[in-house]
Amino acid sequence: MSTTTRVPPAAFTNDDYAARMRRAVDDAAAAGLDGLLVTPGPELVWLTGYQPTAITERLTVLVLRPDHEPALLVPTLERPDAEAAVGAPTLSIVDWADGEDPFVRAAALVGEASTMGISDSAWALHLLGLQAAVPGSAYRSLTDGLPMLRAVKDANELARLGAAGAAADAAYEQIVGVRFAGRKETDVAADLARLLRELGHEQVDFTVVGSGPNGANPHHEAGDRVIEVGDAVVLDFGGLMDGYGSDTSRTVSVGEPSDEVRAVHEVVRQAQQAGVDAVRPGVACQEIDRAARAVITEAGYGDRFIHRTGHGIGTTTHEPPYMIEGEQQELVPGMCFSVEPGIYLPGRFGVRIEDIVTVTVTGGRRLNNTARDLRIVE
Amino acid sequence: MSTTTRVPPAAFTNDDYAARMRRAVDDAAAAGLDGLLVTPGPELVWLTGYQPTAITERLTVLVLRPDHEPALLVPTLERPDAEAAVGAPTLSIVDWADGEDPFVRAAALVGEASTMGISDSAWALHLLGLQAAVPGSAYRSLTDGLPMLRAVKDANELARLGAAGAAADAAYEQIVGVRFAGRKETDVAADLARLLRELGHEQVDFTVVGSGPNGANPHHEAGDRVIEVGDAVVLDFGGLMDGYGSDTSRTVSVGEPSDEVRAVHEVVRQAQQAGVDAVRPGVACQEIDRAARAVITEAGYGDRFIHRTGHGIGTTTHEPPYMIEGEQQELVPGMCFSVEPGIYLPGRFGVRIEDIVTVTVTGGRRLNNTARDLRIVE
Repeated sequence: MSTTTRVPPAAFTNDDYAARMRRAVDDAAAAGLDGLLVTPGPELVWLTGYQPTAITERLTVLVLRPDHEPALLVPTLERPDAEAAVGAPTLSIVDWADGEDPFVRAAALVGEASTMGISDSAWALHLLGLQAAVPGSAYRSLTDGLPMLRAVKDANELARLGAAGAAADAAYEQIVGVRFAGRKETDVAADLARLLRELGHEQVDFTVVGSGPNGANPHHEAGDRVIEVGDAVVLDFGGLMDGYGSDTSRTVSVGEPSDEVRAVHEVVRQAQQAGVDAVRPGVACQEIDRAARAVITEAGYGDRFIHRTGHGIGTTTHEPPYMIEGEQQELVPGMCFSVEPGIYLPGRFGVRIEDIVTVTVTGGRRLNNTARDLRIVE
Repeated sequence: MSTTTRVPPAAFTNDDYAARMRRAVDDAAAAGLDGLLVTPGPELVWLTGYQPTAITERLTVLVLRPDHEPALLVPTLERPDAEAAVGAPTLSIVDWADGEDPFVRAAALVGEASTMGISDSAWALHLLGLQAAVPGSAYRSLTDGLPMLRAVKDANELARLGAAGAAADAAYEQIVGVRFAGRKETDVAADLARLLRELGHEQVDFTVVGSGPNGANPHHEAGDRVIEVGDAVVLDFGGLMDGYGSDTSRTVSVGEPSDEVRAVHEVVRQAQQAGVDAVRPGVACQEIDRAARAVITEAGYGDRFIHRTGHGIGTTTHEPPYMIEGEQQELVPGMCFSVEPGIYLPGRFGVRIEDIVTVTVTGGRRLNNTARDLRIVE
């Protein structure tokens, strides 16, 4: 399998970025914000195509305000890189040199006594600097103030997410053919990472291989444990391909499963199906969680499903909207998120099944399509 | 060359972490802080040995206060990982489940109306949540409130930094033997990254190959430009080995250099020597910058040295103290930082020479020791 034969997606253009920036300003105003402060990370890439080489203590921030040209404040050193970004023609780029106070520059761009949305992952160092430099201003995180900024994907984005999902599916179809018994979790995880890269991922974010009792810790990655015949093994893997995320989980059995593994797996399978079946426009996110959780609770495992049912995915593998009790955001066509219920029996085993689902006008469409039955591996 | 024959450094112990946490609380109190809030990243690793698999929107925070046991608040999902950290026996670990409000839990740990230091890279999402949940509290970034927290290295840390520097030096000695002319910058950069890994680095942070005009952009990494005979090429590379950083720069000439390249290189070499010569306990950081800058200014290139002279290094490749005008922090034995003046002639070429230097009781000792003359490569 070769990565070079893959057809790359259409490139995002300056027009794409300009449209996103306009929409972001409109959405911010509708949400009661006077503007947005976007620091390096997924939002900045999504809005401008600009990704600094490293995220450092030197302040870089995009300032979006109604009736103002989008302004990007960057360290002088990084100005050439910023100017090379695809969205740069839409930006007024301002730089500050080592020794200058970047917050004074930022304050001039922010204006006075405003309420600004700010990137979730903006550094506290920078937020505190802004709070001191612009005393009248208030700040809200994007998750709090504008959580759906990147949530609704356009056709190009959906194509990328679909391709990333298909690549992850292909990785799954190959990994079930490798030997599990007698090998370390980390060996299988390395196989998974290699497959994802071979299949086109430029970044591997996680390759969970949770065998036997390790599968009962949902955030276990992969360790030195040697996989044994009889183990249930949670596989959960993903990363970025052409800038967009994949994330899928399947649980396999090494040799014949016990009746209990089989039964628990079937509960999770039905819960995952119920979650996906609940997806349609206008439904609140929490309903997806409730639908999946109800199946597990009814089967008597309610207290063993110890995480939310899903998370959004796009230019990151974890983003709003979250499928969690209390989240009343309604689903909109073009949103993409995971549906990933699980049951975790401490000290024994875990089961998780996960697909990325996108909201269509009529319901939900899975971007992961490998079989969800309990696959037996060697 | 094999990585397996390398003798690993002595492991840090729970006692090491406990001592660091005690010292951090004492230093915080001396700096007028009521405590510290440390989120995942280099400070948390340094204080506890704990590094979550990923840094996400789920709040993880270490709370250090005088007369309180160190408390680590973690998502329930990540509790097992936190409990496995080497420093865990010193910690009271508290968890919060999806659906709970983590800031309410954090507020109980922070107490009321205090002034807390907080990690530079703590997410704005989390700082804003804390500010709302603990209305009486004030926050200062660690760079602002306690910049020297990790600056003075102990013997084990110095040994690791020395080993990382020696590995980077070995990479340099090998890279000057590869072919430059006719190859892309990215090819030489890939060679550098491979060498660093072969020589023991577990993480490569940057491999700058700035040939000809690209060398005049100090933050250029490596691009598609094909290196030509006659180019000056800035090499600047580093990463982490056993958790501690390397960072060194040399500028080479592909074939015979022009008189101008030779002359500019000599100015930078003398400036770098002057910076290193200025290092001794009690000297303010800005004096290192002044010493190096004076040489360049005197040679008429003052406005072409467009960055500070250096930055600290430790568990990250960029940290306080900074060698910059205005930084009056005095040098203390055990501090480690770069001395890396440069001259950048836009559209033509750049020259930078960089060593990591540690402060000894009598002066400065370089952790990079390859020749600093203008090396001619093919």
